[in-house]
Amino acid sequence: MTAAGDLLIRGARLITLARGSVPRRGAAMRDLGVIARGDVLVRDGLIAQVGESLDARAASEIDAADRLLTPGLIDCHTHACWAGDRLDEFEQRLAGADYLSILEAGGGIMSTVRATRAASERELSRLTIDHLDRMLTFGTTTAEVKTGYGLDTETECRMWRAIRAAGAGPGASPMRLLPTFLGAHAIDAGQDDFVERTIRETLPAVAALQPGIACDAYCERSAWSLEQTRRLFEAARALGCPLRVHADQFNSLGATRLAVEMGARSIDHLEAIAAEDVPLVAGSGAAAVLLPISGFCTDGRYAPGRALIDGGAIVALASNYNPGSAPSPSLPFAMAVACRMMKLTPAEALTACTVNAAHVLGLADCAGRLAPGFAADFVLWDERDERALAYEIAGVPPLAVFIAGRPVRGG
Amino acid sequence: MTAAGDLLIRGARLITLARGSVPRRGAAMRDLGVIARGDVLVRDGLIAQVGESLDARAASEIDAADRLLTPGLIDCHTHACWAGDRLDEFEQRLAGADYLSILEAGGGIMSTVRATRAASERELSRLTIDHLDRMLTFGTTTAEVKTGYGLDTETECRMWRAIRAAGAGPGASPMRLLPTFLGAHAIDAGQDDFVERTIRETLPAVAALQPGIACDAYCERSAWSLEQTRRLFEAARALGCPLRVHADQFNSLGATRLAVEMGARSIDHLEAIAAEDVPLVAGSGAAAVLLPISGFCTDGRYAPGRALIDGGAIVALASNYNPGSAPSPSLPFAMAVACRMMKLTPAEALTACTVNAAHVLGLADCAGRLAPGFAADFVLWDERDERALAYEIAGVPPLAVFIAGRPVRGG
Repeated sequence: MTAAGDLLIRGARLITLARGSVPRRGAAMRDLGVIARGDVLVRDGLIAQVGESLDARAASEIDAADRLLTPGLIDCHTHACWAGDRLDEFEQRLAGADYLSILEAGGGIMSTVRATRAASERELSRLTIDHLDRMLTFGTTTAEVKTGYGLDTETECRMWRAIRAAGAGPGASPMRLLPTFLGAHAIDAGQDDFVERTIRETLPAVAALQPGIACDAYCERSAWSLEQTRRLFEAARALGCPLRVHADQFNSLGATRLAVEMGARSIDHLEAIAAEDVPLVAGSGAAAVLLPISGFCTDGRYAPGRALIDGGAIVALASNYNPGSAPSPSLPFAMAVACRMMKLTPAEALTACTVNAAHVLGLADCAGRLAPGFAADFVLWDERDERALAYEIAGVPPLAVFIAGRPVRGG
Repeated sequence: MTAAGDLLIRGARLITLARGSVPRRGAAMRDLGVIARGDVLVRDGLIAQVGESLDARAASEIDAADRLLTPGLIDCHTHACWAGDRLDEFEQRLAGADYLSILEAGGGIMSTVRATRAASERELSRLTIDHLDRMLTFGTTTAEVKTGYGLDTETECRMWRAIRAAGAGPGASPMRLLPTFLGAHAIDAGQDDFVERTIRETLPAVAALQPGIACDAYCERSAWSLEQTRRLFEAARALGCPLRVHADQFNSLGATRLAVEMGARSIDHLEAIAAEDVPLVAGSGAAAVLLPISGFCTDGRYAPGRALIDGGAIVALASNYNPGSAPSPSLPFAMAVACRMMKLTPAEALTACTVNAAHVLGLADCAGRLAPGFAADFVLWDERDERALAYEIAGVPPLAVFIAGRPVRGG
């Protein structure tokens, strides 16, 4: 019997990622579950059927003409809620200043904190939507967005509300958004007892707004120390918040081991990971979230992506979109850099920002695959070979992006 | 008296590049001739007036709302006419093979030569238009396109005709195109007397199709030797062809000195330039055309852009768009890499792919500036600060691109 639906995509090269379990490790990261020419039927915002020559009809039908259809990309590490810009700092860094020196001098993250504190919730929400629109242009349909430019209870809560508003209500982005609490993004030297207040006051306040929100920390020199991070994580765990951490970006301070010990959901950055910690991460349940655009923009160091995958780690990729160390909204660009600088294969890079990124965000059951019952979030590219996504650098945007079966760009 | 025109852009931040002489050297490369809020009036495909609050009206008026308007970007070094793809080679290189070893094994450029020889003129023209459309997406309005994947008289002439057809006639790209003869792109080991035939037969044949076409050579190990390049250039000079050269990409073989001696119009690449040759280039009339995307895609070496500008060289930037060593159509990405890896300032990078690139192509009198009498080729960006073009990496395409005053994208 002919199946009916709202939208039918016909004749696409389908990257289903539908075989095997999630998260993916090792060789399983190269299994894209390709259907060389297939159809996707959507009903009520979900994928109803996927297969070759479906017996189906729909209110709207699109002939993909053998072009590539992938799951919507999932960006599991962004700082897409910010005010102000860092263009003066950009010129300072081109002239030789380094990232941590600028942070120590009260610039860097702290300059974005000042601009963010000065912005209203409405303004922050509007700016976030603009940043999300840029990400959507390149095929991102789900994004994590961190707080962390507030660094006080009032502004951290305002950021959380702005992120929520950016994803719901009139004028909102159609993207699926997941906030993360990053009150431990820097040390605000202007506040007495800043660390204690973040742990005792700000974290509980944000966790009251969203019970079970993920809690993240930037463990680095001039930012949160290992001991401060541990105390934050103990409080977060007590509140039922999953843990994530920015670890080993410039210096290996022990946060990677702490995160593994405490059962963190992800360990992000890892440019400076100690060689002996690679098997530890690879053998753990924590995903390694690699952020290649940061290396490109700061000191040219990259996480050992190849070794992590070969060792069996759960590897995800993200843009780290932020105004300082990663001013790029493009996951295809993150894939292009990851292949060239971390030696991921194009297939691994695509797995890393679909199913494995979904896992990091707790969405493995509903996003990141072209499979029945999953969200009808997908991207139609003007390409016929999936390797082209990582091969073309700073390439053209996709032809169309769909979220919940609705065209949100092109289509 | 109110001036009349076909198109009026109002209230833009104008990057006119209209002050001073062309080409620009040294500190003059940082003078963008900004008008913080101004208007541009177009008549008959040319810019008629530029200034604050023009007393003018036009059939079509656009409120730029303080967004950035720059001259159309000029890409003065591309290989945008090719057939086939190099995706298998991409995976080989990710797995460790290097660029010159692949070339020596008959891959690399020679694999694109085989695919190009097998393509009809019509097919080549269609593929070129597709590549040009990708460049246009990111604001390129004028492009040089090299032959060089034919390497025999018949195919080099076919490439020339395909490039011409890509820029004229029904279905053509609206972009302004300038072909360059690059019969000396590789050594075809399958042909007896290949070098002699290229010099005595292919060059004159292409120069008969387009008298005064620029003549280029790839002087590198496994490609053209210094002595072969010299003989080609002597023949080209006798035919009245301006000279350009791919020099010092991986090895410094002397082509830079040869080019300066012979009065070449440009010396392109320069990743491996000898330190003592920097002042030689800087003091010469030859432009240094820097190709940062190649370094990003091959061995991570970059030309000494900062030293060249500080020494007083005429510096231009180009994408080098090609399927092997630079699969990116985006001049904003070339600017982003040039700033970070070669330490150009954002202003220098913009000068390098507008007025200085126009100079390389012999278009300094008609393209690359917002000034009366110049072609009405310009780009409206969703930015308010020109530094953002190089700062955002793999950022979103411009809002609109105009060529000869007509919207060719957005608008």
